[in-house]
Amino acid sequence: MEVSVSRKSNFNSAHRLHVAQWSDEKNKNVFGICNNENYHGHNYVVIATVTGEVDDVTGFVIDTKILKKILMEEVETRFDHKNLNLDTDEFKVLNPTAENIAVVIWKLIRKRIENNLKLKIILYETERNFVEYEGK
Amino acid sequence: MEVSVSRKSNFNSAHRLHVAQWSDEKNKNVFGICNNENYHGHNYVVIATVTGEVDDVTGFVIDTKILKKILMEEVETRFDHKNLNLDTDEFKVLNPTAENIAVVIWKLIRKRIENNLKLKIILYETERNFVEYEGK
Amino acid sequence: MEVSVSRKSNFNSAHRLHVAQWSDEKNKNVFGICNNENYHGHNYVVIATVTGEVDDVTGFVIDTKILKKILMEEVETRFDHKNLNLDTDEFKVLNPTAENIAVVIWKLIRKRIENNLKLKIILYETERNFVEYEGK
Amino acid sequence: MEVSVSRKSNFNSAHRLHVAQWSDEKNKNVFGICNNENYHGHNYVVIATVTGEVDDVTGFVIDTKILKKILMEEVETRFDHKNLNLDTDEFKVLNPTAENIAVVIWKLIRKRIENNLKLKIILYETERNFVEYEGK
Amino acid sequence: MEVSVSRKSNFNSAHRLHVAQWSDEKNKNVFGICNNENYHGHNYVVIATVTGEVDDVTGFVIDTKILKKILMEEVETRFDHKNLNLDTDEFKVLNPTAENIAVVIWKLIRKRIENNLKLKIILYETERNFVEYEGK
Amino acid sequence: MEVSVSRKSNFNSAHRLHVAQWSDEKNKNVFGICNNENYHGHNYVVIATVTGEVDDVTGFVIDTKILKKILMEEVETRFDHKNLNLDTDEFKVLNPTAENIAVVIWKLIRKRIENNLKLKIILYETERNFVEYEGK
Repeated sequence: MEVSVSRKSNFNSAHRLHVAQWSDEKNKNVFGICNNENYHGHNYVVIATVTGEVDDVTGFVIDTKILKKILMEEVETRFDHKNLNLDTDEFKVLNPTAENIAVVIWKLIRKRIENNLKLKIILYETERNFVEYEGK
Repeated sequence: MEVSVSRKSNFNSAHRLHVAQWSDEKNKNVFGICNNENYHGHNYVVIATVTGEVDDVTGFVIDTKILKKILMEEVETRFDHKNLNLDTDEFKVLNPTAENIAVVIWKLIRKRIENNLKLKIILYETERNFVEYEGK
Repeated sequence: MEVSVSRKSNFNSAHRLHVAQWSDEKNKNVFGICNNENYHGHNYVVIATVTGEVDDVTGFVIDTKILKKILMEEVETRFDHKNLNLDTDEFKVLNPTAENIAVVIWKLIRKRIENNLKLKIILYETERNFVEYEGK
Repeated sequence: MEVSVSRKSNFNSAHRLHVAQWSDEKNKNVFGICNNENYHGHNYVVIATVTGEVDDVTGFVIDTKILKKILMEEVETRFDHKNLNLDTDEFKVLNPTAENIAVVIWKLIRKRIENNLKLKIILYETERNFVEYEGK
Repeated sequence: MEVSVSRKSNFNSAHRLHVAQWSDEKNKNVFGICNNENYHGHNYVVIATVTGEVDDVTGFVIDTKILKKILMEEVETRFDHKNLNLDTDEFKVLNPTAENIAVVIWKLIRKRIENNLKLKIILYETERNFVEYEGK
Repeated sequence: MEVSVSRKSNFNSAHRLHVAQWSDEKNKNVFGICNNENYHGHNYVVIATVTGEVDDVTGFVIDTKILKKILMEEVETRFDHKNLNLDTDEFKVLNPTAENIAVVIWKLIRKRIENNLKLKIILYETERNFVEYEGK
């Protein structure tokens, strides 16, 4: 029996959408207020969903205490109360759109999860805007 | 990398479940209080999910400002503060169940989204009842 | 020890903001889309808060099963899946604004609650608009 | 047109994670505070999602009144205000992890749904931990 | 300038409403399913609200990191993943109604907060039932 | 009859807690990660509550369309997608704690509301931390 187990986490960060190779004008035209040069910020919500067989004895696919620890180490410690563009290696060059943040988090957590488990990341930038990536 | 981008919107409408070719008694038996002849109403929540490749430069699958604009024009302007049965062309004949509303919204937004993008619509009629349609 | 006990309930209704003694034009100017002649609707959320002394033996101010029953009989049965303007005695004349609905519900529940208990009603018309009345 | 229809329900139960064939020490090591011998509890939220063709006449995949009744009879009556380990046949032996509870609920509801409809169960143990099972 | 600062916390516990001096029959009649002898449980949500003057230099009434620590030590450590009736000193005799739990938490936190600050406790037993106590 | 009318709004901003007259070390000790020199950010939620007499004819205390417009002009335009410390006059010197932001918003909206109406501001910095100011 294959079950998906999800764990929700949070991080509060500053960011700015900006493409370095574009002019300021083009950045402003494409990204609008999200390009504000002094940054803005969000309360990001991340949901990591791990799918696999339920263990016959424990009744677990993955212990949510382990998933919580991975999210703490890979996501919260790395991104919480940080400026994504300035304070993190991941988004020094890469534009920190919700799409890109979800893909980066997926890669960080994928390394920590066993190969026989599938992984999906949902990232809420606001209550009204969110993205989903499952490694395809 | 294929990512899904979702945008949430709202509309507050009156409606009534009613099948014109049925007797009043059959309508009442099948639809119960949802058949109330003077209508009732809901705060509908609609989530449009667009799936496609992340653009290498922008980091966007689709700009949520564009998705917000499409939802405004195709859903909010059309259905918000309206009586679905009386004030809209879409539900003059078609019974405005959550299922049918989701399919109608999917068709309206599908026309506005590029062909290489997939589309899913989630429609909440209440916090406890919701439906999902992805064009299959 | 004085504690407040709250119980949340729901009703889904159609309504229209309209003042009978005004012209159609004035109604449209003041109430805008809320004046739509064929009605629109909402998922109303009502919270009844009862304040009083905690009983030494039961540890209750009021049994929430009783409060739930009162809300069912006075609010849900009366307003759920109804057109507030057409189907209810309370809003045949009175304009069904959130303010007026909250006051009407307060009066209906006040009659059912013992005199030594205080009552407050919170009414959500949407997630973003809500009102509060405590009988002053 | 294939649409998914979801209905949300609740039950509030005590439980304890415990594997009978393990020592107390191993149970404590694996399940931590979830193994507390006097139990703890949760407000479980269950979402049943039924997928199938929309009926041309009614506009329904399944009447949510029916889905609500099934959830009431199979889930709420069985598990609400119960101790899952002591008061239910389903978890006398089976460890009541979120994964196992979701699979049990899926089986109970599957029997009550027509064969041509697909079924998915989402179970929230807390706002931050939830699981999903669709019968694979 | 007097501002109220609130911090939200959680604990997941088993409990049973029961008055020792009453017969089993009377307990069942008054408390219904909440009297289930093997307990049931809830995801309790507690909000501690501290009111006082804003410090001119820090801009704080109380540092929420301190309030978080107090809630961790006085509420979470004490009640989370416990059976309120069996595992805690506070509810060995006292009936663990939401009202009584809120009063107990108020007293525990009151001792840890400076005298010039006011304190209010809101306790959600479920999303639909909650209580509030401010020490009067 | 005195009723309170509330309207919810949002703004997404970067900020940093910092007291200019303190050393870097003291700032770090007091504000911790909230002092991060490159800023972090939040999805702020603001609720403006206006209390006054219900108008006999309109059934309004204040038209929520007006309250929405005031929030748009005074809060969203001013603070949304901004760096509170760098981009706004209000927090160039004043430390942008939740308490101070709530007081600033209260003063901005107070000027736009009639004298006979009372005003309260609730500001959520995160789902778990929020403050309230009513001008006392």
